[in-house]
Amino acid sequence: MNRQQLFDNIQKKQSYLCVGLDTDIKRIPKHLLVNEDPVFEFNKQIIDATKDYCVAYKPNTAFYESLGSKGWQSLEKTIHYIPDSHFVIADAKRGDIGNTSKMYASAFFENMNVDALTVAPYMGEDSVTPFLGFDEKWVVLLALTSNKGSNDFQLDTQESVGQALYEKVMHRAQEWGSAENLMFVLGATHPEKFKELRAIAPEHFFLVPGVGAQGGDLKALSQYGFNKYCGLLVNSSRGIIYAGDGENFAEAAGNAAAKLQSEMADLLDQYL
Amino acid sequence: MNRQQLFDNIQKKQSYLCVGLDTDIKRIPKHLLVNEDPVFEFNKQIIDATKDYCVAYKPNTAFYESLGSKGWQSLEKTIHYIPDSHFVIADAKRGDIGNTSKMYASAFFENMNVDALTVAPYMGEDSVTPFLGFDEKWVVLLALTSNKGSNDFQLDTQESVGQALYEKVMHRAQEWGSAENLMFVLGATHPEKFKELRAIAPEHFFLVPGVGAQGGDLKALSQYGFNKYCGLLVNSSRGIIYAGDGENFAEAAGNAAAKLQSEMADLLDQYL
Repeated sequence: MNRQQLFDNIQKKQSYLCVGLDTDIKRIPKHLLVNEDPVFEFNKQIIDATKDYCVAYKPNTAFYESLGSKGWQSLEKTIHYIPDSHFVIADAKRGDIGNTSKMYASAFFENMNVDALTVAPYMGEDSVTPFLGFDEKWVVLLALTSNKGSNDFQLDTQESVGQALYEKVMHRAQEWGSAENLMFVLGATHPEKFKELRAIAPEHFFLVPGVGAQGGDLKALSQYGFNKYCGLLVNSSRGIIYAGDGENFAEAAGNAAAKLQSEMADLLDQYL
Repeated sequence: MNRQQLFDNIQKKQSYLCVGLDTDIKRIPKHLLVNEDPVFEFNKQIIDATKDYCVAYKPNTAFYESLGSKGWQSLEKTIHYIPDSHFVIADAKRGDIGNTSKMYASAFFENMNVDALTVAPYMGEDSVTPFLGFDEKWVVLLALTSNKGSNDFQLDTQESVGQALYEKVMHRAQEWGSAENLMFVLGATHPEKFKELRAIAPEHFFLVPGVGAQGGDLKALSQYGFNKYCGLLVNSSRGIIYAGDGENFAEAAGNAAAKLQSEMADLLDQYL
């Protein structure tokens, strides 16, 4: 999916919501465990209930890998089930030497056919560029993450450039990719920074985790984070998929997604 | 496996060689493709041919993921096939927010039962510590990698500490883990740095990729990198597993591993 198509969907749905499919077999409703593939069955019902309110899905590969090759199958089935109208981000935080990054790119962009993959920048340019050579496929590069550990290295000033590490990552990466194939992960737990972040990368989409369970502020980050293509995909995982825990879990997830979509429609109306 | 057992194996084998199982279905000998699981068949023969000369194996998860759930099965079978006497490192370069890192830890330490997992430090303390709570399991944390992109961020001086990023990573991580559950990835392509690296972390094991295809210098890094537990696992992937490409590929791999083991025996004798 290209940037214009993503923006068209955002306008049509009046939503920039990404639903995170962090599906934990220990947390899904008990009545689903009789299914042959309970994880897929859960995701299927979550997708059916939320697809009208979101423009993207973000399966978190860790939750599938924790179930071995069977989990990997559930992931493949889930990605296949997501409608073509939705942007799919594999949240895998990969990144390795060139020949290895190429294999990850093949895994996610060719075989799984997702639209985007989260990538970690620590290993630098030649670990990221192998993911950038695919038509209408995207790297979502970690910059300033939503967790407490973002303080440990990302916020440190780099002597060579007089910028924090996350800023240097954002500047350097714009030499490697364009606003048509590169997004940044910027945590909602740093809402005070969104004006500055938008100034660093005016054209790029930001994937924003940390709304909901992690406590980020949707209004502030939208007000300061929007660009002319909206430029934000705001993710909620646990706040949506575990909104309910009984027979009506999918309905509860749909309601939670609808509530966020309605807030987003207001914010788009007010600030875009 | 604990540190003493690893060192005992190094002394017994007179080897600190780790064989990297970066098994690419496009590069394995054609005659193996008739097997039901050619990737596993290749690995099985490589393991049989090299196990006397190495103390560790490092399957690179990218190569298995690129084949989807089938590849994940080949990985599981490969790990199961590696003798208990050998240290197994899943080279996956994972790292995410706490609840997600926990799932990766479960995937690799509980389900796959590997000894160690490579982890990327960009997201800081709470992305790394969930991997450190498993008895006799190890985090192998990226510090100074073997690729050209290691220049982009890792070598940058951090104003807060007056140290390069990789140094800060090594210092901070020693507050999180001990020499009994934490190793560092330090590329053989920086042999001039091994004296300094050993001074930063005198007790910890280093996993050293980049010997062979990437051109690192075994003698220099051994001379300066050894500690009283040897403290080095030197990895070679392509230089061993693709030493031959015909019917005799396993024999060629065994010979390549034996040659490195013999160099290592001399270096242990000379410098340990």
